[in-house]
Amino acid sequence: MNPDYKKLLKLLKTGALLSSAQSLLDWDRETYMPEKGITVRSEMLETLSGLVHKHKTSPAIGKLLTKLESASLSSQEKACVREIQRDYLHATKLPSHFVKKFTEVTSTATHVWQEARAQGDFSLFAPHLEKVMSLSRKKADYLGFQDHPYDALLDLYEPELTTKTLSPLFASLQTKLTELLQKIKKAPPIDDQCLFVTSSKEEQFALATHFLKAVHLNHDGARLDLSAHPFCMSLHPLDVRMTTALRDRNPLFCFFSVLHEAGHALYDQGLKPEHYGSPLGEAISLGIHESQSRWWETRIGQSLPFWKHFFPLLQKEIPGFSSTTLTSFYKAINTVEPSFIRIEADEVTYNLHIILRFELEKRLIEGTLKVKELPEAWNETMRTYFGITPPSVKEGCLQDVHWSCGLVGYFPTYTLGNLFASQFFAVFTQEFPNWEERVASGDLLFIRAWLKAKIHTHGREFSAHDLCLQICGKPLSAEAFTHYLDQKYKDVYHF
Amino acid sequence: MNPDYKKLLKLLKTGALLSSAQSLLDWDRETYMPEKGITVRSEMLETLSGLVHKHKTSPAIGKLLTKLESASLSSQEKACVREIQRDYLHATKLPSHFVKKFTEVTSTATHVWQEARAQGDFSLFAPHLEKVMSLSRKKADYLGFQDHPYDALLDLYEPELTTKTLSPLFASLQTKLTELLQKIKKAPPIDDQCLFVTSSKEEQFALATHFLKAVHLNHDGARLDLSAHPFCMSLHPLDVRMTTALRDRNPLFCFFSVLHEAGHALYDQGLKPEHYGSPLGEAISLGIHESQSRWWETRIGQSLPFWKHFFPLLQKEIPGFSSTTLTSFYKAINTVEPSFIRIEADEVTYNLHIILRFELEKRLIEGTLKVKELPEAWNETMRTYFGITPPSVKEGCLQDVHWSCGLVGYFPTYTLGNLFASQFFAVFTQEFPNWEERVASGDLLFIRAWLKAKIHTHGREFSAHDLCLQICGKPLSAEAFTHYLDQKYKDVYHF
Repeated sequence: MNPDYKKLLKLLKTGALLSSAQSLLDWDRETYMPEKGITVRSEMLETLSGLVHKHKTSPAIGKLLTKLESASLSSQEKACVREIQRDYLHATKLPSHFVKKFTEVTSTATHVWQEARAQGDFSLFAPHLEKVMSLSRKKADYLGFQDHPYDALLDLYEPELTTKTLSPLFASLQTKLTELLQKIKKAPPIDDQCLFVTSSKEEQFALATHFLKAVHLNHDGARLDLSAHPFCMSLHPLDVRMTTALRDRNPLFCFFSVLHEAGHALYDQGLKPEHYGSPLGEAISLGIHESQSRWWETRIGQSLPFWKHFFPLLQKEIPGFSSTTLTSFYKAINTVEPSFIRIEADEVTYNLHIILRFELEKRLIEGTLKVKELPEAWNETMRTYFGITPPSVKEGCLQDVHWSCGLVGYFPTYTLGNLFASQFFAVFTQEFPNWEERVASGDLLFIRAWLKAKIHTHGREFSAHDLCLQICGKPLSAEAFTHYLDQKYKDVYHF
Repeated sequence: MNPDYKKLLKLLKTGALLSSAQSLLDWDRETYMPEKGITVRSEMLETLSGLVHKHKTSPAIGKLLTKLESASLSSQEKACVREIQRDYLHATKLPSHFVKKFTEVTSTATHVWQEARAQGDFSLFAPHLEKVMSLSRKKADYLGFQDHPYDALLDLYEPELTTKTLSPLFASLQTKLTELLQKIKKAPPIDDQCLFVTSSKEEQFALATHFLKAVHLNHDGARLDLSAHPFCMSLHPLDVRMTTALRDRNPLFCFFSVLHEAGHALYDQGLKPEHYGSPLGEAISLGIHESQSRWWETRIGQSLPFWKHFFPLLQKEIPGFSSTTLTSFYKAINTVEPSFIRIEADEVTYNLHIILRFELEKRLIEGTLKVKELPEAWNETMRTYFGITPPSVKEGCLQDVHWSCGLVGYFPTYTLGNLFASQFFAVFTQEFPNWEERVASGDLLFIRAWLKAKIHTHGREFSAHDLCLQICGKPLSAEAFTHYLDQKYKDVYHF
């Protein structure tokens, strides 16, 4: 191995170890930390975060990258250097004083957002959101862009994707989804009351365990705990932490959360441990990561074959489902209904929520929408896409934490996840025409193996675009996804 | 505040924050870490530990200390600087290459010790113990000492205590304990079979909770979890982690562990949060720390008044105790019997185990005992102190992990804890002549308040010696402890 390449990897590994320590501190804050530990925890995280940033921007990395420009490397090593270069540029483009200011402003904004949402008062939050958007615009300037400032922000979460590509993709998707929603609204509604039964934590975890065992989600190298909001955090491919949450009279919230987070966890476990610390041991993009969680949560978890195997287990573990039939259960979990809250949305409307946020944040960044106009623009778009108007800002533009945290350019990756998942799924079903029978017999391992070989194992060797070409033979589009939705919901709603 | 003093505290705080992060990584390793996470966890800990060491030995600290020599400071600030100076000297006296070597040798030794203990084969461990002892002797040379190399090691855990003071103290204590043990052995034995009942985790935790509530061990700022061996770890006075363990058919193992660890936790919680990161926010010594755990575990937890209140709760939570009487229960938990294993020993024999280790490790360090002679020296001392001979090295010199970890000079602090606790307790009972009635009525808070005001709140402002003088009006001796044991066990064993 080239000695400079080796040195570079060693430098990165130290940063990764500190970053993993930071992740554990984050995980513990959300799971087991005593409430009063929060102040010192924030200081601990700030200290570690400063050290991680120092490592990421170390001039030694820059020097080694320059030396490696003319080195003879394997194609995988070249890909690795390309990605390190990318990260290094990102990290060094933002001046320290700016990073500090951004952290302060978003920290206060998050605090105020909680208060404003509780009170349903947008005017409290507006001045802080103005600051966040102005700093995000400045961030775009620091990072640099060709066509649109939003490109620079999007690129942080979904490398190389541009507003120019995304805008028409989302616009046509919105039209199709709104059309499909119209059809569904005209069909007789589904009664989903059978889903809302009482169940203990033990019962819900017992059910989740059946799934985790079926996908061989390695328990010596992963955990499942409770937190306020489900998440997945990876310290290393051999130490992955998932969480789920319990909701009163809604045991499937826990189960589908586990499927979703397990999708992320399987990706993290599928990365090669020997590449830990280098881009070859990291996930490609948030969109690809989300494709894995949505794959298990929706494409598998909301499918009929899956429940042919799991429905008897559900009835065994959670007695409240004993008088329900598989057919009515399957329809109930696939109920589509326009609603105000993104995180509770079904497969069809979920992406309309995302497209709405994308359109609004893009306009906020380019300056064609003012912060004070946001609540009305939100409600107007809700009417256009869903045909409903939020009763207050609590169910409107104050519902998500993302903007207060400065996560602008992040929302689109949720929908990209659904699109990637569907496009990959189309290839998967061609390779496994009998997948429904296998899944109905409880076999899920062949799916995990396929995803690992096609996606997980490569780390960031290929870009999302190249990986998509490699797997599907064509670039990302909404076609596979809308085709899937049309077919499935025609059947569920009989139109 | 003096600006240099302020700068010094700020530097220390960063080190403390990293050190707390390290503690959390340690805690997680013992509680929730998936098994396969161990390799990367060790690397994470090594990286953090290197950073902590770098902070502790930073030349900036040395410069500020020099500047502060002539500064005008309050007496508390002076005490703080004195302790920072002490820590800085300790940290800088050991060269990095030595610290690295020490870590490597003890890490291997610990690994081999496990194997050697499992096989009951001392010859496997001997060469590694030789290395550890030789490096420990070298450590003493680096640290420096006046009379005896053991002083330098002892001073790491019990500042300012010397072999010259400790040897006669322990020798006379040993004579008295062995005499008391002789008397007890002649008395009719106590039947303690009533203690060994089956009980669930929930029952054992419910019982522990009664105690934790009674001492107001703040649950917003502390946790209790399970681990293989009970311990207490403090990240900050507002984030203290205790663990306990469950033993088959021995629910009191869990309960007394909780009392012990709660004693440590109450000390950690009693330190002032505003002094976090400085010696004023740290515990004085391991001996003083242990005095707090042994106070609650033995002086309170093995007392009759305590069980007058807690016995009905025990019977309520753990039905297996329902047919036992308070009198026979009290005798059973105070059974004295010579045994081979330190951690299972009673109040009387426990310190004989410690004195044995002290005598042997002192001789290993001064070179008057060779490693190969250790098993026989151990057995001979067991015969002299206890009148019994271990059947194998598993129950003999291979039972404790300490030496393999390089913890030489550490053992005495266990007995010092008992001695300090008893000497403080004598003062406490003078101040609260009705303590037994109050405890019997379930009131434990006044005890916590007394310990906090007398000990916890001062951090390291006073040395253990000065604090002892301040509280008791005389230096540490074994008098209060042996007096307590004589009185108590005369009553328990009717001699």
